[in-house]
Amino acid sequence: MKKCVVLLSGGLDSSTMCALATSEGREVHALTINYNQRNVWELNAAREVARVNHVAEHLVFPIDLTLFGGSALTDASVELDKDVSLEDIGKSIPSSYVPARNTIFLSLALGFAETRDASEIWLGVNQLDYSGYPDCRPEYIEAYKKMAKLATKAGVEGRPLEIRTPLLLLSKSEIISLGLSLGVDYSITRTCYDLDENGLSCGRCEACLLRKKGFEEAGAPDPTPYRN
Amino acid sequence: MKKCVVLLSGGLDSSTMCALATSEGREVHALTINYNQRNVWELNAAREVARVNHVAEHLVFPIDLTLFGGSALTDASVELDKDVSLEDIGKSIPSSYVPARNTIFLSLALGFAETRDASEIWLGVNQLDYSGYPDCRPEYIEAYKKMAKLATKAGVEGRPLEIRTPLLLLSKSEIISLGLSLGVDYSITRTCYDLDENGLSCGRCEACLLRKKGFEEAGAPDPTPYRN
Repeated sequence: MKKCVVLLSGGLDSSTMCALATSEGREVHALTINYNQRNVWELNAAREVARVNHVAEHLVFPIDLTLFGGSALTDASVELDKDVSLEDIGKSIPSSYVPARNTIFLSLALGFAETRDASEIWLGVNQLDYSGYPDCRPEYIEAYKKMAKLATKAGVEGRPLEIRTPLLLLSKSEIISLGLSLGVDYSITRTCYDLDENGLSCGRCEACLLRKKGFEEAGAPDPTPYRN
Repeated sequence: MKKCVVLLSGGLDSSTMCALATSEGREVHALTINYNQRNVWELNAAREVARVNHVAEHLVFPIDLTLFGGSALTDASVELDKDVSLEDIGKSIPSSYVPARNTIFLSLALGFAETRDASEIWLGVNQLDYSGYPDCRPEYIEAYKKMAKLATKAGVEGRPLEIRTPLLLLSKSEIISLGLSLGVDYSITRTCYDLDENGLSCGRCEACLLRKKGFEEAGAPDPTPYRN
């Protein structure tokens, strides 16, 4: 049984990917990064997704990125972009951009994978919807893969870690259709940047807008609990 | 004044590099990673080095790599290589190898640098002495640099972060000679993998052996406080 590390945020993309890895017969070691983000509720979502997928291991790894700040998700003084329109998404880098987040998360996954003797890291990046994030672009991912091959003892010994990004070129609706075919219960996943204390989504931030549009385009009812 | 992030462990190499960055007129933002390593005493050394160099900022960033384990430095069940001989160093990857450590540290430095609007990251890797570590090799560093150029908002906006490794091709004695010419006080730096509670070095681990040899070859007295 091939072992893989799944970077699991508890959002729509990574939850779909977790189900995909499970359905493809992987032994899943889920890694959730608690980076002291604005909404801790998404950690609950990650735990629930890990549970329903019967993963071999789920590690919630704490790392306090508010010590760096510089993002609406990690710095109370930075405002979230509110009332964005779908047309504007991807035109500039949003205030929700967390400096070097994917690089930090992938690097932690690399260390975790090596200690678990896993041969793959699965990352749920998706370039179409998040073209505004530099670290979701295919050219970034390719460069990371090359670096990762040289970074570890496992790599030197002929067991380089493979980084898989099965959602990279899919649209949000394609991801949702894939997930529904795998039986994913999207009511337990969370995407919103501005969840309230009950885990209810705002319905207005860019993440909510893209998620809503995805369900519409997939022709599926949106089970997300919204607060209005 | 150019801003740079210096990854500062408090060891001989990074302490020399911190003095070099200071002497070259950089505004130094020192980043020390407290990864819950075996010897917390090296954090004191880092604080002292930051203080004597009058750095603009010194952040000690906690990240618990014992949650991953897999190294003699982060896992109490893994034994340190003891009584190694100088001849054997570099022939295999030692038990002090921490999975993906440099990749994780550089990635944190990348996020820190971006939020501080720094244009450089200085890393004190040194391939000659640590040829056993995959993430100290020049080909690894080159691959990391390429990835880093694509990873950040600053890079997308035409301000890619430069990663500098001024010690990469120097021998330990050349590093010591450089540091002495810059007035580095090596009695406050720590290198040993097995420091005792008073900050005294063992004199027997591979890090101590290389440091001792470096002072011998540089023709300088070794000011390291040893316990025997």
